[in-house]
Amino acid sequence: MKKKISNIPFGPYIAVLAGAIVDGKPNYATIGAYGVVSQKPVLYISLKNSHCTTKGVLESGFFSVNIPSSDQVEKTDYCGTVSGNQADKSQVFESFYDEAGTAPMICACPVNYLCKVTQTIPIFDFTMFLGEIVAVYAKEDCLSGEKPDGLKVDPIVLMNHGYFDLKSRIGTIFTACSGNK
Amino acid sequence: MKKKISNIPFGPYIAVLAGAIVDGKPNYATIGAYGVVSQKPVLYISLKNSHCTTKGVLESGFFSVNIPSSDQVEKTDYCGTVSGNQADKSQVFESFYDEAGTAPMICACPVNYLCKVTQTIPIFDFTMFLGEIVAVYAKEDCLSGEKPDGLKVDPIVLMNHGYFDLKSRIGTIFTACSGNK
Repeated sequence: MKKKISNIPFGPYIAVLAGAIVDGKPNYATIGAYGVVSQKPVLYISLKNSHCTTKGVLESGFFSVNIPSSDQVEKTDYCGTVSGNQADKSQVFESFYDEAGTAPMICACPVNYLCKVTQTIPIFDFTMFLGEIVAVYAKEDCLSGEKPDGLKVDPIVLMNHGYFDLKSRIGTIFTACSGNK
Repeated sequence: MKKKISNIPFGPYIAVLAGAIVDGKPNYATIGAYGVVSQKPVLYISLKNSHCTTKGVLESGFFSVNIPSSDQVEKTDYCGTVSGNQADKSQVFESFYDEAGTAPMICACPVNYLCKVTQTIPIFDFTMFLGEIVAVYAKEDCLSGEKPDGLKVDPIVLMNHGYFDLKSRIGTIFTACSGNK
């Protein structure tokens, strides 16, 4: 049976850490507002205008998307709870950099995307940043044939107020195709 | 050790079924390009302009976001593989409707969002639709206190070319807050 419930975006979403240089220091904010928007190598993040990270992305023109694994859920929650306006989050994670852009990336996260802002879209009191992917890093032990393996990466899923980890691989994209053509 | 890999948006993403009425019939397309963009009850989906569903959303002004559970991975993959331009997908799932909008929703999916298009943003050969949530449905047995429970919903995560299901609840949002204030 279906039940009508409140008009709330309960998710699910993927929890990611958005990174930027703010006042010369790395800063990371945990967000669910991340994703893909086309088949091009472009990601979006959406950040509240009052957030510390937003200022950094606007000033530097770069952001990173860091995919935490489930064993990093405590630090991930911390970076979504405590504002960079109130606390210095530059030492929560060890950072590294790529010459393609100024945004910091998190060493401990299994996958990192470095993005150059290409479009800025105001949405209510948030700003959506579209960024071209200019570098991608992954932990070597999370790769299967040069590509990140979902189970090894073990990303964190957000729904309602819970964080969840992954169990198993249940299928492969476009398998239906071979079975139906 | 970190390794630099190809500039590809490997994910992770959540697999959802975007629904719209196309030529008078329900049509569903599986996408990873779905998410939240602010704290308002607004979701986005991004659809390739040539896709059948895109035409339906443009014409009707409504779309639905249906969250499949892991046991629906085969039909989910089918709706991401086979185009509505080539096959009639109206009978893959049983549909239901809400008076707030014309987009069809999938009975079998544990959570459904009905959205009214409020903004249309062209991105390369895709169109990003922002939609205000005008109705939300959930299966009664997937609720905990009137809200969807991630483990009961058991959404599908996409990464690289794999589909994955959820294992366990590993934390609660803003728990770090109580420990740090």
